[in-house]
Amino acid sequence: MVTTGPGRPRLTSPRRPGASAAEEILDAAAELFTTQGFTATSTRRIARDVGIRQASLYHHFATKEEILEALLERTVSPALAAADALTAADVPGAVALHALAWFDSRQLASARWNLGALYLLPELRSPSLAPFVEQRRALRGRYAALARRAVLESEGGDRDGDDAALLDLPFRIVESVIATRADSDEAPSADIGRTLADAALRVLGVDGQAIEPHSRRALAAAGLADTAPTD
Amino acid sequence: MVTTGPGRPRLTSPRRPGASAAEEILDAAAELFTTQGFTATSTRRIARDVGIRQASLYHHFATKEEILEALLERTVSPALAAADALTAADVPGAVALHALAWFDSRQLASARWNLGALYLLPELRSPSLAPFVEQRRALRGRYAALARRAVLESEGGDRDGDDAALLDLPFRIVESVIATRADSDEAPSADIGRTLADAALRVLGVDGQAIEPHSRRALAAAGLADTAPTD
Repeated sequence: MVTTGPGRPRLTSPRRPGASAAEEILDAAAELFTTQGFTATSTRRIARDVGIRQASLYHHFATKEEILEALLERTVSPALAAADALTAADVPGAVALHALAWFDSRQLASARWNLGALYLLPELRSPSLAPFVEQRRALRGRYAALARRAVLESEGGDRDGDDAALLDLPFRIVESVIATRADSDEAPSADIGRTLADAALRVLGVDGQAIEPHSRRALAAAGLADTAPTD
Repeated sequence: MVTTGPGRPRLTSPRRPGASAAEEILDAAAELFTTQGFTATSTRRIARDVGIRQASLYHHFATKEEILEALLERTVSPALAAADALTAADVPGAVALHALAWFDSRQLASARWNLGALYLLPELRSPSLAPFVEQRRALRGRYAALARRAVLESEGGDRDGDDAALLDLPFRIVESVIATRADSDEAPSADIGRTLADAALRVLGVDGQAIEPHSRRALAAAGLADTAPTD
C-alpha cells in the first residue's frame, strides 16, 4: 500500500513520474490534454490513467480547469523568476535578454509535455485561468522591457525603441519552440536554446556574438546555475 | 426565398458574409471554432448560427473535420501560391523571402477570424486534416528554402546555411501574428506586415533595409499586386 498525501491510500504503485498523487495527476493530464485535447479529456479518464478513483482526484483538484491552470503556470513561473533575477542583475539589457531567452527556450524544449500548445485555447478566457494568463502577460512584459533596454543600449541604435511589435519578437521567437515541437515528431535540436537566444537579439538589430559568455555568467550569478544551459 | 446552391432553399436572408451557403457555414464555424473551441462546437450549433437546418449543412460538408480542413487550407493556400510565384521569379532570395513574409503576415493579420490559433490542436493528427497539414508543411519548406538562398547570397555570409532551426525562424516569425492576435483584444498594428518581413530577414543576419522597394515590385510582378501590402 502506497501513501501519497491526501486522498485515499493507493492500492497500487504509482504509474506516473512525480513524488505525489497530485504530481501524477498533473502528468497524466498533461499527456491527455496535449495528445487528445483539453475538451475531449474528462477527469474520469485522467483518474483512470493515474490508477486512482475519480473521487480521489477531486481531493487534489476541484475542476479540470484547475488542473490546466496548475500545468500552465508551471510553464511560465520558472521563466518569470529568471526574468526578475536577470532584470535586477547588474548586466546590460542584451545580456539579460540573451540569458532569459536561453533559459526559457531550453525549458520549453525539454519539458516532458508540450503544454504551450494549449496557450491559444479559447478556454483560457475562463476566470479560473486568469492567474496563468496574468503570469504569461507579465513574462511577455519582462521580455519587452529587456528588449527595449538592449535596443537603447546598442551602438548601432538605428532601431526604434518604441516599436511594440518589434520589442515583442524575442518573446515570440522563444515561444516558437512550442510550434516546432508540435510540427515535428523529432525532439528539438540540442542547440535550440542558443539558436533562439542569438536570434532574439539579432531580430532587434543587436549583435549577440560576443554575448554568450556573459549570458552564461549572468545565469550563474542569478542562482540559475543548476539549470543553466549546457548546450 | 433565397437560393444558395445545393441544399434546401433558404427561408431567410443570409446572416453571414459569403456568396453561398457553404461560405456562410465556413464563416459561422470559424467564429465558433476560434471563440468556443473546435471540440465544444457541434455541427448543430453551426447550422443554427447560419440559420439553416443541420441536414442542409450536411449537403455541403460531411463532417465537422471537413469544415475545419476547408477553413485551415484557406489560411495557407494563398501563401503557398505566393511562395511558388516568388520562388520562380528572377529575384534574389532575400527579396522573395521579404515579399512572401510581408504578404503572408498581412494575410494572417487581416483575416476575419484568427484560425491559426487552431494549428496546434491534437485533432489535426486525424487523417481528414492531412491535406492541410501537408500544405502547411510545404509552405514551411518554401520559407526555409528561400531563407537558405538569402543566407548563402548575403555578403556578410557568417551565418550557417545548414542550420535548420535558424532557417525555420522566418516562418515562425510570420506565424507569430497568430499568437499576437490571440493575446490581445486589439487588432495588430497596420505596420505589422513590414515589421515582420524586416525581422524575417534580420534574424538570418541579412540586412533588409534596402529590400522593401524590390519586395513590392516582386509582389506586383508575381501577379499579387491586388493583394500587395499597402502598409
